Formats: sequence, C-alpha cells, structure tokens
Amino acid sequence: MEHLKGACIIGQSGGPTAVINASAQGVIQTALASPQITRVLGAAHGIKGVLADQLYDMCQEDPEELDLLQFTPSSALGSCRYKLADPDQDDTDYKRILEIFQKYDVRYFFYNGGNDSMDTCNKISKYMQQVGYPCNIIGVPKTIDNDLSGTDHSPGYGSAAKYIATSCMELYQDARVYDTGTVVIVEIMGRHAGWLAGAAALASWAGSGPDLVYLPEVDFSMEDFLADVKRIYQSTGNCLVAVSEGIHYADGTFVSEAKTSATDGFGHAQLGGLAAMLAEIVKENLNVKVRGIELSLLQRCGSHLAARTDVEEAYEAGKAAVEAAVSGLTDQMVALDCTRDADGYHCQTKLVPLTLAANTERKVPRDWINDAGNGVKQAFVDYALPLIQGEALRPLVKGLPRFASLRKVLTTAID
Amino acid sequence: MEHLKGACIIGQSGGPTAVINASAQGVIQTALASPQITRVLGAAHGIKGVLADQLYDMCQEDPEELDLLQFTPSSALGSCRYKLADPDQDDTDYKRILEIFQKYDVRYFFYNGGNDSMDTCNKISKYMQQVGYPCNIIGVPKTIDNDLSGTDHSPGYGSAAKYIATSCMELYQDARVYDTGTVVIVEIMGRHAGWLAGAAALASWAGSGPDLVYLPEVDFSMEDFLADVKRIYQSTGNCLVAVSEGIHYADGTFVSEAKTSATDGFGHAQLGGLAAMLAEIVKENLNVKVRGIELSLLQRCGSHLAARTDVEEAYEAGKAAVEAAVSGLTDQMVALDCTRDADGYHCQTKLVPLTLAANTERKVPRDWINDAGNGVKQAFVDYALPLIQGEALRPLVKGLPRFASLRKVLTTAID
Repeated sequence: MEHLKGACIIGQSGGPTAVINASAQGVIQTALASPQITRVLGAAHGIKGVLADQLYDMCQEDPEELDLLQFTPSSALGSCRYKLADPDQDDTDYKRILEIFQKYDVRYFFYNGGNDSMDTCNKISKYMQQVGYPCNIIGVPKTIDNDLSGTDHSPGYGSAAKYIATSCMELYQDARVYDTGTVVIVEIMGRHAGWLAGAAALASWAGSGPDLVYLPEVDFSMEDFLADVKRIYQSTGNCLVAVSEGIHYADGTFVSEAKTSATDGFGHAQLGGLAAMLAEIVKENLNVKVRGIELSLLQRCGSHLAARTDVEEAYEAGKAAVEAAVSGLTDQMVALDCTRDADGYHCQTKLVPLTLAANTERKVPRDWINDAGNGVKQAFVDYALPLIQGEALRPLVKGLPRFASLRKVLTTAID
Repeated sequence: MEHLKGACIIGQSGGPTAVINASAQGVIQTALASPQITRVLGAAHGIKGVLADQLYDMCQEDPEELDLLQFTPSSALGSCRYKLADPDQDDTDYKRILEIFQKYDVRYFFYNGGNDSMDTCNKISKYMQQVGYPCNIIGVPKTIDNDLSGTDHSPGYGSAAKYIATSCMELYQDARVYDTGTVVIVEIMGRHAGWLAGAAALASWAGSGPDLVYLPEVDFSMEDFLADVKRIYQSTGNCLVAVSEGIHYADGTFVSEAKTSATDGFGHAQLGGLAAMLAEIVKENLNVKVRGIELSLLQRCGSHLAARTDVEEAYEAGKAAVEAAVSGLTDQMVALDCTRDADGYHCQTKLVPLTLAANTERKVPRDWINDAGNGVKQAFVDYALPLIQGEALRPLVKGLPRFASLRKVLTTAID
C-alpha cells in the first residue's frame, strides 16, 4: 500500500442522479481536509475533462456552495458518456491521461459512475499499474438503474425509487377519478434491469399503486399484457400499469425498438416513447380511454423527493473512497454492505475490486418477480423499502430549491 | 336571504388537482359542524352521482381520514366531465336533480370545479330559482389552469405551478450535464390560458429554468420557434423550452392538432404528444440531440409539492362556501381577493355571481408576456410567486405519502 502525496481528480460520468453530487461533496470535502492531498481538481465532463485538460480548482469554491451539492441534482462538474478504447488496441487516451496526471502530480483519481464508468476507472487503474505510475484509483458507485455488481445497491437508486413510488401513488389517485375508466401506462427507466420499474410496486404496497408491473428480467408478451390489462380493467374499471423502458420480447427485441434508431455514446439504443406506443396498442385492442406517461428525466433529477438515506449513503461513499485511497488502497470500488433484519436496516461501506464491478449488470432475481411476470413479490419490497426512507432537508428560497452554484475556476498549471 | 335547514351535497367536477380535496375537506368539516345542515352528502363523480342517486354519507367517515383530505391528490369523491343541457331545450336532468334534492331534503349544494363546473352550478341554481325550490347554491373554484374569471387565482393553480417550477429547475440542471448539448422541450397543461406554462418561468427567475416559454396567448410561429431554439443552442450549447399544450397558429389551429382526434366530454380536443412532435421537428431542422417531456397528469396530482398557501386557500374556499350558504346567500362563487404590496401577499375570500365565473376564460394579460412572445415579464413572476409558497406538511408512512381512505357509504334514504 502506497501512502502517496499529491493532487486528486474527481470525475462524474454517465447519467446523472439526484444524489451524485452528494458523492462529489463527500469526495471533495474529505479530500480538501486530507493532508496527503495537495490539490482537489474537478474534471469537467468526467474523463473528457481530463483528456481536454479542463480541470476545476475545487479549493476556489465557496464552502457553503459545496455544502449545497447534496441537494443539487445532476452532475455539477458535468458528465460524459465516453468509452475508453482497449489499451492494447489504442493507448492514445491513456498516454494523454498519464500526461495530465503527471502535469498536475495527480496521485488520486476518483470516478463516480455506473457500469461503464467503473470500466473506465478499471482500465485507467490497470494502465497506471502497468506503466508504473503510482496513483490510487477508487470508483464511487452511482446509478439510478441499480445494476452495479458487488454492492447491495447504488447511490442514486433510492431517490429515483422514491420519486417513482410517490409519483405512482399520486397517479393512481388521479387515474381513477372518473367513472368512465382509464388505463394509464407509466414508462420507467432501466435498460436491462427492472430495479426502477419494480420501485413502482412500492406504491402498490402502500395501497395506491400500479395493478401491473413489467420488468425486463421477464420476456414480454404483448398478448399476455393485453389480457392482463383487459382483466384488471373489466374487474375494477381502471388499470394502472408500470413498464420498464427495457421490456423486450423473447428474441431480445426491445418492445420500443421500432420507435427508435439513435444510440448513445456507449452503443446503447436510446429508448423512449414506449408508453405512448403501448397506449396506442391498448386503445386499438381494448377500445378504452388510455394515457401513456413517460417519467423521463424527471425520475433521475427529482432531488425534491430524494431519500435522506440515499443522500447520506452517497456522501459516505464519496468520503470512503478518499479515506481508502489515502490509506493506500487502489483499484477498488466503494460498495454498500447492508443488513435488513429485526433490528432494521443497517448500511456501511466496503471495498470491492474494480474488475468485479465493471461491465457486469446485476438484475432483479427472477424469484423476486411473480410467476406471471407482471408484479414483484414481498422480497423486492423488503429490499427496496429501506432505501427510500427519509426526506431531503433541502434549503428553499421563496418556495423553490436553492441549488449549489459552483465557480468552476479552470486550473492551467501547478501553483 | 333564506336561512334554510336541510341536507347539503358536495360535488367535485372536472380535472382533479393536488388540493381539490382540501376544498372538499373545508366544505365537509364546516358543514358537519353547522347546526343548519342536517346531513352532509358527497356526490359520487359530481353531478353524475346526483343524477344516479349515488350519494355518500359523510358523517360515516372517520374524522381523522377527513383531516387527511388536504394532503390527498385527485378528487376523493370522484369527478366527472358532464355538461348539462340548456334547460330550455331539455330539462330532463334538472327535473331529476330536483327530485333527488327533494328526496334528501337538500337545501345546500356546493360544486367544486372550473369554468364548465361553474356553468353546471349556475344552471342548477337558475333552475331551482325558476321552479321555486329553496336551495342555496355556491360554487367553489378549482382549476390548475387558473382561467376562472372573478377571482385573483383558483385553488389548485399554486400547487401545479410549484410542481412545474420545481421540475423545470431540476430538468435545467439535468439537461445541461453533457458537453454535447441537448434541447429539452417540456410540455405543460393549459388549453387556452398560459398560467401553467408561465409558471415554468418561475424556475428561470430562480436561476435554473427554461430559456424559452411559449404561452397560448400569443400566436405560435414554427419559424420563430426554430430560430429562437437555434439562437439559444448556438450561444449556450443547450436549450430548455417550456410550451403550453395549447399553443396554436395564427389561424387558431393547435400545433398539436395533427396528433389527436379524441375529444373529452365537453367537446375539447384532448391534447398531448406536442413535446414529442416539437422534439422531432427540432431534430429534423437543427440536427441536435433533443428530448420531449410531457408533464402530463403528474403536474396536477403532485401533492408532495403542493404549496401550503394553496392548500390553506383551498380549504378556506370550501369553508367560506358553507358559511355563505348558511348565512342565506346563493348563486355565488367563492373567489379569492388578494393584494401584493410592500406588506407582502394577503388573501381573503369574497363572493362573485356564478354567472360571472361560468364559461369565461381568464387569460394571461398580453403585457405580462414579452414582446417576442417567448417568455414572461416580471409582472407575471410578481403575480405567481406568492401562490407557490410554503410546503405541504404531509404525513408519511415508511417514506411514502399517507392519503385519506374514505369509507364512501352510499345512502339510499333519509334516516
């Protein structure tokens, strides 16, 4: 274990969340207080900011604004979706990153993101080891999708889940207001894992939620879906449905696929429009009033409904990353280690190898989903419910949120 | 003025809001405490429940559940969109309503809704006067659209405005997270008046909101819109746009019109899909990354973001309706009379003739909108900002809202 002294870089990557800035705050404030860390640099738009030599000097930020990061949604430093090449094929980016690390005497690198970002982090870590550049590299987990391996859950998930569950509870009340009956279809994020869609079932657990929930862990059948909706609608006069954007047929084709062609920087299909599409199909087949609602970006930036538990865990994950790095650890990701028993819910941080976390997707266990594949079981509720607890005590000005306002002073040379 | 003694009926009508149940609570609790009111009956689905003889006995409800109505979105008694015929053309419904009023000795009728509901209320009031059936009839204003005449604003607007402003603030943070740039188009409700779309500008006032806001009070030009978006995108790298669902071309055609054919019970075109449509047009014309987001039902049922001011005013409006009726007044709508000056914001209830409120739509004054028609002026902010103040101190169970659960015991005869 190397006890290094030098600068650190913190970068944010991938889709933002309501609490990724809480992790950044945990990293930045812990790093600013660390005697081993000489400078704290924030990368503009993640690794792209490192490659472009666009680094913000965090010690020039107002400490009170840094305190507000935990209540500020999205990625305050800017994010990116940039996949590093295999270094054996093309090491251009890696050489450039090393050059920047050397320029600023960077000895600590913290990267906050999901699967793809942990892959980036892992590749940089392996490269620095290979070229013998001493630098402690720690990943900080983040994803509303909750599909990172090696951790009980990822910061960001609990707040998105709370937003989804609360919104579904409200929609349930609204969607059954007329005596004429309505089918409402709510589209929820989650490309390959149904953790977010499953969170809609927390609303049902609370007595005011979807009648049907479809996760991408189970192959979708349009026939079964239409039969489910028809049955519920005929027996209750209404039907509220939650669907993951990632639902797909048995052959792997996304149900939404016909509606989209664009892809994001990682090669993922950019999904969307599924709710409207299913609404149209239900209308055509069942001849009922139907409305499709896509929670879209709202579910990942809804910091006004952030779970206090999630905000605190996100901060702790950032703090633990710095503590691990300055103690000499590297090539790890901070993970959350949780217990749920008669004593309640307890969570602490631990470290797992970056290789474990990178590029593997953790899915909802099949036996947490009901046999029919249109709802979740109590095991899912027991898992997710502790993660949405507590309210974010966000500051307000004139009834509206007060977000952090960073100065973002670019640094060009070592002082 | 007739000081009547007898039963009362409270009905909820039109689209629900986050606080229409606060008004119902104000009516029900004040009526239950009134010596002149012998029974408090809730109409199932508004006037349709009266016509169908489906009335709930409110004294059979748990008082603690009634207390929760103020935190429960949507219309707890059920709503309807039912337009009464002109009584000179067809008095079938009116005869039936009279029959039900006589059956239950109804001497007070409270109807909670927007323009169309005040029209219903007005027609029933005039009919009862005409046939000489003593019954005091008072309308209680409700509409997120805020287009009722005769009142400073309508309960329901402030909470929807707070939801819209807060969501736009969060979306602004999210939509500018990547260095690649995005245009985000947010579609906001409001058929013919731009009060709700204008509320998005409160987010801009708070430093984190739309660059462009389009209200239906100004004729829409696709050319100007595309030029506006291009200009903002080119100078800032991003663009957040808020549009009212009701924007229309100079000839009156809704911009969204090509996308819809269904109409609601009042003959209104059912709008929707405008954001997706504009997103497609922007993408085609400017070749930029773009996302359309429709706030849809979320903006009218978002009780977790209800403004305390709105909740309290909604309750007071219901209470004032009962107090006016038992004091002998009839044929009136409760209105809000507000002042905004150096002393701050003050609001009290007053009464206006139902005829004044029925069927006239109050629009945003043209001189509160900027000359270019793509934003609002400070006068709008000064008007709307006091209405979104305060947080709803809603009860939570396990991190999720606890809504009122009514027993809804149907009554079939007079005890």
